[in-house]
Amino acid sequence: MRISELSRQTEIPVATIKFYLREGLLPEGEHTSPTQAQYGDDHVARLRLIRALLGPAGLSVATARTVLTAIEHPPAHVHDLLGVAADAVSRPGDPGRDHSVVHALLERWGWQLDTKDCSSHAALADALAAIDAAGFALPEGALDLYGRHMHDIAEIEIENLPTDSPAAGVRYVVLGTVLVEPLLLALRRMAQQEISGRRFG
Amino acid sequence: MRISELSRQTEIPVATIKFYLREGLLPEGEHTSPTQAQYGDDHVARLRLIRALLGPAGLSVATARTVLTAIEHPPAHVHDLLGVAADAVSRPGDPGRDHSVVHALLERWGWQLDTKDCSSHAALADALAAIDAAGFALPEGALDLYGRHMHDIAEIEIENLPTDSPAAGVRYVVLGTVLVEPLLLALRRMAQQEISGRRFG
Repeated sequence: MRISELSRQTEIPVATIKFYLREGLLPEGEHTSPTQAQYGDDHVARLRLIRALLGPAGLSVATARTVLTAIEHPPAHVHDLLGVAADAVSRPGDPGRDHSVVHALLERWGWQLDTKDCSSHAALADALAAIDAAGFALPEGALDLYGRHMHDIAEIEIENLPTDSPAAGVRYVVLGTVLVEPLLLALRRMAQQEISGRRFG
Repeated sequence: MRISELSRQTEIPVATIKFYLREGLLPEGEHTSPTQAQYGDDHVARLRLIRALLGPAGLSVATARTVLTAIEHPPAHVHDLLGVAADAVSRPGDPGRDHSVVHALLERWGWQLDTKDCSSHAALADALAAIDAAGFALPEGALDLYGRHMHDIAEIEIENLPTDSPAAGVRYVVLGTVLVEPLLLALRRMAQQEISGRRFG
């Protein structure tokens, strides 16, 4: 199909589609002349994905590009998928930060994690440092509770990780990160309102 | 103390402190002459908080200002604190979005929420719409599981909400939102890596 038909099917303006092409989010169509190209169902699917990433998931164009690249060029090993997803959406942690508080937590919880791969440690170390720096006291026992609940959630998520193709795996992991995180946070806020309403409302 | 001493105590450069003053994040000191002002321990505490919000918590200057204003001007009613926190850190949801899917979920879970106050509904509706639009299938039963876990987490959080002063309450709620959200997400990613490592590593 031509770009006008692609625009009609996806309800995305032609100018926006051209922007995605220029930004490298959408692969070029097959050129049938210097000024015309043909697009297929892959482009329709990709446009739906781009809209979801940029729209409600709230990614920047640069981050969306990283995510899409990761889906196109998946790592060879299933376990490395998680690193790709984390890297795609994480801000780099403070490299000078002491991770010993994180390592102590992991030991207490019996979580076996490669201590060489500290990119996820960095996010946790940053979050704990911010709480500490703000003088904010977590409720007694809250940190252990958070760890237990997140572990239970991760169990069902990893259990359902598709292992038939690396592309399917990375898609699941990356979208499960960028799309499910806002879902979890929205649910937490609503749950707080629900409980607060019953108690104080 | 003078600004130079404030800078020394907090290890924040004078130029940065002046930036916070100009941006309205830090209240003015008490002027002792047209070019000199005195600062107190309140300024030290406020600077720690500003650093935590802008640094690891990753807020923009504008959002940090909203958060600080909320802490200074708390609402009269405890239950309204949660709305203040949500408003301070939420992107406005799509106003045209259909919330019926959210209302159906709340009914299924028995969550009693004021259906007039739809700002938190909007965040959940957006997150679900993004998942749907991307063609991403949540694992069977995952949504109910997410709801249950977030409700358990919110229980301990609301239980510990300080009700002695509105300012303490809003501080707890706002910081509990902006500082604990990155913590939960970091824990989920690490838990995924831990489980994936045991299963595939």
